[in-house]
Amino acid sequence: MMDQKLLEQIVSQVLAAMPELNQAAKTEQGIPVGVSNRHIHLSAEHIEALFGCGYSLTKEKDLKQINEFAAKETVTLVGPKGVMRGVRVLGPVRKSTQIEISRTDGFALGIAPPLRDSGNIKGSPGIVIVGTKGAATLTEGVICATRHIHMEETDARRFNVADGDRVTVKISGPRGGTFGDVLVRVNPNFRLEFHIDTDEANAVFLKTGDTITLCK
Amino acid sequence: MMDQKLLEQIVSQVLAAMPELNQAAKTEQGIPVGVSNRHIHLSAEHIEALFGCGYSLTKEKDLKQINEFAAKETVTLVGPKGVMRGVRVLGPVRKSTQIEISRTDGFALGIAPPLRDSGNIKGSPGIVIVGTKGAATLTEGVICATRHIHMEETDARRFNVADGDRVTVKISGPRGGTFGDVLVRVNPNFRLEFHIDTDEANAVFLKTGDTITLCK
Repeated sequence: MMDQKLLEQIVSQVLAAMPELNQAAKTEQGIPVGVSNRHIHLSAEHIEALFGCGYSLTKEKDLKQINEFAAKETVTLVGPKGVMRGVRVLGPVRKSTQIEISRTDGFALGIAPPLRDSGNIKGSPGIVIVGTKGAATLTEGVICATRHIHMEETDARRFNVADGDRVTVKISGPRGGTFGDVLVRVNPNFRLEFHIDTDEANAVFLKTGDTITLCK
Repeated sequence: MMDQKLLEQIVSQVLAAMPELNQAAKTEQGIPVGVSNRHIHLSAEHIEALFGCGYSLTKEKDLKQINEFAAKETVTLVGPKGVMRGVRVLGPVRKSTQIEISRTDGFALGIAPPLRDSGNIKGSPGIVIVGTKGAATLTEGVICATRHIHMEETDARRFNVADGDRVTVKISGPRGGTFGDVLVRVNPNFRLEFHIDTDEANAVFLKTGDTITLCK
């Protein structure tokens, strides 16, 4: 048997000498999965209503997407049929408040969030949000986010896709299959990551850090 | 335009005259979906432990599968991290108690049920079950059931599948895709139905009564 290190050196040299093969090898590489639990993006106005005048969010940890972070702050969602505590606030501040929940969460809260691309909240259901210093009653803003892949331009080129494309991905494992209608989002601040909600993750036994592949 | 009734008569006569075309048309027909919420099958011993000596289940409504019914009785599941009330008992009595929950339920209860074909509970986690008259502490029995299609022999022939096969199904709609590793279960008492749990249903926006198709 050949030495593992020697094998790796040979493969690396072959790939360097053959850009097309290298490209193909990279395209075959998996896309890392990021599972989004229910969360909320807040407007400046709602941050003050929930946490007090002049309040600003405190970063708990950076997310993989550049400038995005999980805040220390959480809120309580109060729907017609149920209450959910400890819903994480994601920063930075947004122009409009948007709440992303799973369909399972929707049944528990008693609301039916429509499937929407992030940012498109027009006509979606509202909800009551409670913070440490007050509450806000939204007339719209609760959605079930379209599954999507974040990537930068170099990724888009090697996958041969463009911003706004809808693609299909393949999931391996004991409960595998494919997910269609996956939105491609390309931006210099994005890092390669396939975002799904907890229903989608649990249905096919995926967790954050697993990988999936693009269908050709 | 031709009269709708006349059209239907013509199609019906053509199909009757051409058995192969008829077969193909039937194979294309969708398979109805049945979404299984978390539920429990109880042994005679556990029915008495939970509801009292000599107790027998009361039928609430028949299920689509012959002899299967939803009972009026519900139980409470108590796990290391959470409690779930109102978990429906399904009849008739089984040899061993088996609890079928979704992966999402597992996280809420604080247990990790393995993916198993119904009936195979060996080595699965246990849980505490509470009824109206007492509790039972299971050492095993909680599973995440393999998605499966119930059918009788005539269905199996037209779909060209056999009991125990693993097939792939196609889901349409705004969050469509495919589910692989679907177990085929053939029995004279079965009626055509694709059983999935709530995670699977919510991930692809399916509800009871929707239809899916078998992939060739």
